[in-house]
Amino acid sequence: MWTKNFSSIRLFLKSEQGHMEEEMKNSFIAIKHHINGFPVESDFELKSQPLRLSAHPGSTDIVLKNLFVSVDPYQINRMKTLSPSHASSSVTPFITPGLAISVHGVAEVVDSDDSKFEKGDIVEGIVHWAQYSVVKAGESALMKLDTLEFPLTYHLGILGMSGLSAYVGLFDIGRVKEGDKVFVSAASGSVGNLVGQFAKLHGCYVVGSAGSDQKVALLKEKLGFDEAFNYNQQKDLKSTLTKYFPNGIDIYFDNVGYEMLEAAVANMNPFGKVVVCGAISEYTKSMSRKGSALNMVDIVYKRIKIQGFLVSDYLNVFQDFKSKTAGYIRSGKMKAVEDISVGVHNIPSAFIGLFHGNNIGKKIVKLA
Amino acid sequence: MWTKNFSSIRLFLKSEQGHMEEEMKNSFIAIKHHINGFPVESDFELKSQPLRLSAHPGSTDIVLKNLFVSVDPYQINRMKTLSPSHASSSVTPFITPGLAISVHGVAEVVDSDDSKFEKGDIVEGIVHWAQYSVVKAGESALMKLDTLEFPLTYHLGILGMSGLSAYVGLFDIGRVKEGDKVFVSAASGSVGNLVGQFAKLHGCYVVGSAGSDQKVALLKEKLGFDEAFNYNQQKDLKSTLTKYFPNGIDIYFDNVGYEMLEAAVANMNPFGKVVVCGAISEYTKSMSRKGSALNMVDIVYKRIKIQGFLVSDYLNVFQDFKSKTAGYIRSGKMKAVEDISVGVHNIPSAFIGLFHGNNIGKKIVKLA
Repeated sequence: MWTKNFSSIRLFLKSEQGHMEEEMKNSFIAIKHHINGFPVESDFELKSQPLRLSAHPGSTDIVLKNLFVSVDPYQINRMKTLSPSHASSSVTPFITPGLAISVHGVAEVVDSDDSKFEKGDIVEGIVHWAQYSVVKAGESALMKLDTLEFPLTYHLGILGMSGLSAYVGLFDIGRVKEGDKVFVSAASGSVGNLVGQFAKLHGCYVVGSAGSDQKVALLKEKLGFDEAFNYNQQKDLKSTLTKYFPNGIDIYFDNVGYEMLEAAVANMNPFGKVVVCGAISEYTKSMSRKGSALNMVDIVYKRIKIQGFLVSDYLNVFQDFKSKTAGYIRSGKMKAVEDISVGVHNIPSAFIGLFHGNNIGKKIVKLA
Repeated sequence: MWTKNFSSIRLFLKSEQGHMEEEMKNSFIAIKHHINGFPVESDFELKSQPLRLSAHPGSTDIVLKNLFVSVDPYQINRMKTLSPSHASSSVTPFITPGLAISVHGVAEVVDSDDSKFEKGDIVEGIVHWAQYSVVKAGESALMKLDTLEFPLTYHLGILGMSGLSAYVGLFDIGRVKEGDKVFVSAASGSVGNLVGQFAKLHGCYVVGSAGSDQKVALLKEKLGFDEAFNYNQQKDLKSTLTKYFPNGIDIYFDNVGYEMLEAAVANMNPFGKVVVCGAISEYTKSMSRKGSALNMVDIVYKRIKIQGFLVSDYLNVFQDFKSKTAGYIRSGKMKAVEDISVGVHNIPSAFIGLFHGNNIGKKIVKLA
């Protein structure tokens, strides 16, 4: 999973010279209140606010027209009521009801008072679930985007943070070796499908779980997974995994937590590794439900390692990852799987859909 | 925790020449049936069997008079009914009702048909909860014991597998650094007290939990722990740990599992490590109770690593560990804490007592 601390991004500029400049309306998505549990449409609102499309001289502001924004499950954790546990654990800035929501995106520079950027530049960085953003380069980790002649959306998915999550989780945290038996949950999701593709390229046996027969077919027929199964059709996940891994699991890339994690631990080989990228089934749990029930006796006897990570700790390998992955795409060894909605007003449904398994691959919203 | 696969150790020799040799009775402890849950006295029996005190020529047998045997919580896992989950996970040979129970011990050679050992040698290796054992050197990992002028019992505790568990867990799995804030559960136990002592020598802030005020006093007054608390007197372990670790936990050395583990994870710092040496509170759980409830969202956001280990994987560092630790003892920097019962018939109560917190330090039974 990825997140990073970008504080105090100013979305809107006040007009300081008494409405001398042309103003327009900027639409954006906000939460009405903190969300604990499953998100629903009524938790969100489409708001708008006046926006001046020119950067104020001396401000170093950059005005961006957002083209594509990412939609990821981890955002729900930023929408929760801040608890002491959150406060101690989280490196993510929480989302304030009524204000614009920061998110990774690809945008076009409309105007810039920062000399490193100029009108027409295509950039990537932290923008908002909004039509326009006014940002500062450093706070938004803004970079000119070298598209490498790939579609812009690739830079939010297979060549972006989703891809880097898969890459780092598998190679750096999981230390995957040729011949390893790898299990991936949420395998048709933004990160999961890439974990499977990377693992196959690395000579592994790869099985994925997903929530529909359509997704299972995609994994097996288009993405090269050795096996895949629809978890909604299994009575006993532990037995299912024993069936698909008669010789045990070496690496479990976990995106979901709970029962799937418990079943994977029961099927792990000695010295097996659990790479914890996310835990979507825990993100929306009720406050009273406890966490994933891990058999610590198994953890000891099988010397299992369980490790969480955040992709934002690995930006130093981003360029390596990107050039390697671009090569795989060009040679047809990897495929991008994307699921694109259109329009700022459709962001809430796109986001809510993540928790119902509606997306296949990377969920992106096209804004312009 | 430690365990190793020693199969087919022969405890008794048949007299093959028609009772030509002097026989005596060898007393040993066996389980009457598999034990699932808390062990009680009636689960065990004191048995005896005829024993010939001379090794049969050509057999390579070594006849041992056992002097001290180890009593450790992990043995309960070997006494359980074999389940498929056990079978896949365990490297420990299971204990068969009615037969002698293998265990680490210190013994004296009574007779030997192995040229590498002779009568009077003091040895360490896998013997039995019995007065005598007949073993083969390789199968029992038998080694002549260089006492280094320390009491024999030290070689089962502070200079033996308990010490190596603490050492490897803290330094190899935990990668402890000077200044780390370290929490140890079962801190007055065989491994826990040594973890705390090693961590203090390494310049850490160390807090231990134990089950009585007497144990707490020992930790703080004799063993140099910065703080210790009686977990039986705490209402909310999470708050207790927050009180003792206002700046968070860097390393949690877990010997118990369950609520203590859950509370520790809630109090861990980013990049914190959980070293899973044992899970005594899970060893005796009912089959229906699930494992420790881990907050996987914390695991991800705090990039926590949880890793189980078995000391038997680290015998290559045993000599290094031993000479270093011997130096600490000689210079008064480390202390051995031992709890010794006497007599083979007292082994069951010594063992059962482990699960009620009766022992302080390494539990050993003196046999001769």
